[in-house]
Amino acid sequence: MVTQGQVITCKAAVAWEPNKSLVIEDVQVAPPQAGEVRVKVLYTALCHTDAYTWSGKDPEGLFPCVLGHEAAGIVESVGEGVTEVQAGDHVIPCYQAECRECKFCKSGKTNLCGKVRAATGVGVMMNDRKSRFSINGKPIYHFMGTSTFSQYTVVHDVSVAKIDPAAPLEKVCLLGCGVPTGLGAVWNTAKVEPGSIVAVFGLGTVGLAVAEGAKAAGASRIIGIDIDSKKFDRAKNFGVTEFINPKEHEKPIQQVIVDLTDGGVDYSFECIGNVSVMRAALECCHKGWGTSVIVGVAASGQEISTRPFQLVTGRVWKGTAFGGFKSRSQVPTLVDKYLKKEIKVDEYITHNMTLTDINKAFDLMHDGECLRVVLDMFV
Amino acid sequence: MVTQGQVITCKAAVAWEPNKSLVIEDVQVAPPQAGEVRVKVLYTALCHTDAYTWSGKDPEGLFPCVLGHEAAGIVESVGEGVTEVQAGDHVIPCYQAECRECKFCKSGKTNLCGKVRAATGVGVMMNDRKSRFSINGKPIYHFMGTSTFSQYTVVHDVSVAKIDPAAPLEKVCLLGCGVPTGLGAVWNTAKVEPGSIVAVFGLGTVGLAVAEGAKAAGASRIIGIDIDSKKFDRAKNFGVTEFINPKEHEKPIQQVIVDLTDGGVDYSFECIGNVSVMRAALECCHKGWGTSVIVGVAASGQEISTRPFQLVTGRVWKGTAFGGFKSRSQVPTLVDKYLKKEIKVDEYITHNMTLTDINKAFDLMHDGECLRVVLDMFV
Repeated sequence: MVTQGQVITCKAAVAWEPNKSLVIEDVQVAPPQAGEVRVKVLYTALCHTDAYTWSGKDPEGLFPCVLGHEAAGIVESVGEGVTEVQAGDHVIPCYQAECRECKFCKSGKTNLCGKVRAATGVGVMMNDRKSRFSINGKPIYHFMGTSTFSQYTVVHDVSVAKIDPAAPLEKVCLLGCGVPTGLGAVWNTAKVEPGSIVAVFGLGTVGLAVAEGAKAAGASRIIGIDIDSKKFDRAKNFGVTEFINPKEHEKPIQQVIVDLTDGGVDYSFECIGNVSVMRAALECCHKGWGTSVIVGVAASGQEISTRPFQLVTGRVWKGTAFGGFKSRSQVPTLVDKYLKKEIKVDEYITHNMTLTDINKAFDLMHDGECLRVVLDMFV
Repeated sequence: MVTQGQVITCKAAVAWEPNKSLVIEDVQVAPPQAGEVRVKVLYTALCHTDAYTWSGKDPEGLFPCVLGHEAAGIVESVGEGVTEVQAGDHVIPCYQAECRECKFCKSGKTNLCGKVRAATGVGVMMNDRKSRFSINGKPIYHFMGTSTFSQYTVVHDVSVAKIDPAAPLEKVCLLGCGVPTGLGAVWNTAKVEPGSIVAVFGLGTVGLAVAEGAKAAGASRIIGIDIDSKKFDRAKNFGVTEFINPKEHEKPIQQVIVDLTDGGVDYSFECIGNVSVMRAALECCHKGWGTSVIVGVAASGQEISTRPFQLVTGRVWKGTAFGGFKSRSQVPTLVDKYLKKEIKVDEYITHNMTLTDINKAFDLMHDGECLRVVLDMFV
């Protein structure tokens, strides 16, 4: 069946309204325009950012939309002028674009490409400021420039990473968000050195990837902090060497950690999105050099605070998005690392389900046992 | 007259109570004990930190005390075990010690030596946890480990920098605090690169030293922000290329700066001690890489805030104390730079007075025309 240049009708999970169950619909996916790529999404995982926008708490959330941003698939067709990928290429859609031409890409200082953000931020494609998704002519918004909860999606060519076709797509779909975010927070943003003492707040997928990255970087102690003590056993497999449950301490958690570490940790990572925890993560850092990286995404309007003395006495407060990785350049190298068994991926997948189970999959995410649910899009 | 080993009675400005005029008293200065150095203070300048503690707003302030921490003098005598300085050496007392032995000094990551802080923080000397100052047997507390508003003071040997005797003490006394703080914030903490766009909030001594440091580092634009437009002409001489008075704008100052700079500055420096300005300084930084350094000292209990999104999108929030300079090692090199005319010092001195004028000198500090007042201690 020739699909190139044709509208494809396929299954997608549509978020019609905030906080209402997703509905599996037949959606029409228009062909890619200039600079666009249509991708057959074979596997997608769920991430808390999808759940956040779906909840309606994201003031930039637009409905109806197709959520999803952690996936892998195969290029179905490309629009005019697209040269770096072609039909049949195995790819990972990247919510963080990389154009290699803008002020950000050229700076050498950040992965935050600005090329298509003005369009992806409002749920449309840059070429005509319209959506490629519709149902009986009614447009459905894109999400994060990826919309992977659809069997076919259209992305900008600057937002797609070509990967080794030997890689199992049902695994490496995770390299579209959570795992790189954690690893990169350690390797690119904090640049943890051998022998460092590290604290990780929140032992979900991102927190465990931070632990894994810290272990690979040679950290001497990796302290995991979570209010669910059941998570500790699993966390050991990712490199966590000590565990603290703040509920078991009367003192503020930052003080507990400072006491345990002769003055504080060298690096801390907040992987929850809770502004109080972000403060604790900063304040458990060692005077003189401790660096805290905000990895979690806080709810809109919330603010972080601390006494300026914390910074004047040498602590550094940073954040990271997609772990500082340049998406098109570096996601393929992460896939290669996975194939060489240098990084874990399989171990983060706790559940395999299908697109039709997507609402159950979101329910599962609230369970402490669950890390990543991967959906097979074509079963 | 042999003074070594004897109590010296000399003039000092004593702060008997918060917010009451300093009183010139005859104080007894005990001889230096093991690891201590008694210094004849020839010139001292006044700094806002003296005024802050004197005001009573510093919860760690202890009274009665001898304030003062930006000075230069000559070693009168040394205690047992002191090898790095001897009587007759020209020195600058350093409120930030450098022992070269503690965890901080050995880290290679910070100038915040911890050796004597437990004593200097509570106004005494480490050896016997007592003060060397007294009036008729009543102890008078030390301040910041320096107490330079006295004709003689006793400091720890780790808190005194030996300098080239060719340097004019009435000038280089400024290298004890404000000027290095500003220069070092740029050179050591931010590490400003050539071509950078820099914003400086507050055009007092420290802010002007930031501008001077940024100019030396090759910044392409140095934007000075102050609510007193009269300060601009002088600021030009220190490297400021543009001036913004927030009172002349309706928009928040961070937005004004972002608009003026195509997205924000590469580096910003808060040199006032105002937590709202600290927020503006962070938020005027460029997405992806902008770094803000807190240099000013906020009042106790005040907090800084921002949305975590500011950091997640690549801004970095830091602080600096004494500009990150290691005091004993690097103050002498700053003196050498001054002698080679590589850094300004004379230009920061707007007034010369005497110890007896000290209350008038503090009044002058509230005047926008005033940068540094230097007191001749023996006139």
